[in-house]
Amino acid sequence: MPEEAEPGRVRPGGRTARVREAVLRAAEDALTELGFSGLDLADVARRAGVGKTTVYRRWGTAAGLVADLLSDMAEQSAPRTETGSLLGDLKANARLVQRTLTDARQGPLFTALIAAATSDARTAAALHHFYDIRVREWAPCVRQAVDRGEVPEGTDAHEVVRAVSAPLYYRLLISGGRLDEAAADHAAEATAAAARAGAYVRDGTEPA
Amino acid sequence: MPEEAEPGRVRPGGRTARVREAVLRAAEDALTELGFSGLDLADVARRAGVGKTTVYRRWGTAAGLVADLLSDMAEQSAPRTETGSLLGDLKANARLVQRTLTDARQGPLFTALIAAATSDARTAAALHHFYDIRVREWAPCVRQAVDRGEVPEGTDAHEVVRAVSAPLYYRLLISGGRLDEAAADHAAEATAAAARAGAYVRDGTEPA
Repeated sequence: MPEEAEPGRVRPGGRTARVREAVLRAAEDALTELGFSGLDLADVARRAGVGKTTVYRRWGTAAGLVADLLSDMAEQSAPRTETGSLLGDLKANARLVQRTLTDARQGPLFTALIAAATSDARTAAALHHFYDIRVREWAPCVRQAVDRGEVPEGTDAHEVVRAVSAPLYYRLLISGGRLDEAAADHAAEATAAAARAGAYVRDGTEPA
Repeated sequence: MPEEAEPGRVRPGGRTARVREAVLRAAEDALTELGFSGLDLADVARRAGVGKTTVYRRWGTAAGLVADLLSDMAEQSAPRTETGSLLGDLKANARLVQRTLTDARQGPLFTALIAAATSDARTAAALHHFYDIRVREWAPCVRQAVDRGEVPEGTDAHEVVRAVSAPLYYRLLISGGRLDEAAADHAAEATAAAARAGAYVRDGTEPA
């Protein structure tokens, strides 16, 4: 049922929450091993030790399950770090992204979700929503930098946060190349330099 | 035969070249319509009007066909534009990437190839090689900017060129959002600002 699948309404610790937890972890396992094309609700139910009917009734389709998994990932993901400087904050963010993408479990999971989003509109929407939540979590570090006078008024905080991640995902998916701490630091340094130079100042409208 | 499939050795205009052309265009059609998981050599042969045996003998597997397609795309892709300034050159590059990714045929084709690379090592290697060739094509614009004194000595030309593309692919695959000329110009402006500030100066070793 849609209401049950909506994360905010799940009673923590109850049976519903335990079933959801088991099913989402099983979905992660299946995605990591087989990719989205290998995600099958009956297989997920088996892995989770949950009745097939429960899984079909509650999540409906593989895309529905992935959308709920991304909601859960957004809820569970780490809060931002505050270091007192824009460069410090952006480096902390870049290193968190870099560690996630190179993690033995999280890396293949994110890659599978991104690949799935290229051919499934509902997964794409859930993925965009996940990243929107992550960007909103980190955006205050840019507004604090504006307050400290590190970057100009009108700097688009969301675009700055996205700019830190972009080169790391580009390496992962497009160009290849080492995805190490140095790559993370370079991404943060380039973004901070561009932000200081006013390259992310926009005319007040938040771009889509 | 591997020698025949190697692009440099195909005699232009000969039968071998005509067969390759028909098969690669058919492979593009199939990838655009069905994605990598739907790419089937027998289907490609049918679409190209070429014998199945020829296709199997020459390309062997779907991954082999995609690798040859990426070689061909690298050969066919547009030469860089010279505008006389780093920002002008980077904007020309960004707009070329933006037009390609939003093109009705090229966009889905690149998306399918990138998704395929997430689960197939040979396709990933071919994709990295394709982007390496594109980066090498544009890198001289950064070295010219060093000569003109626009950016500091030691600026990593390859990293600058990759930085222009990264936010555009990030929008396409990860965050969503408009992929328009303004997004292209912003990517070029941020990269040029960071390059001027010395953010891409490296210690002489070309990063992987």
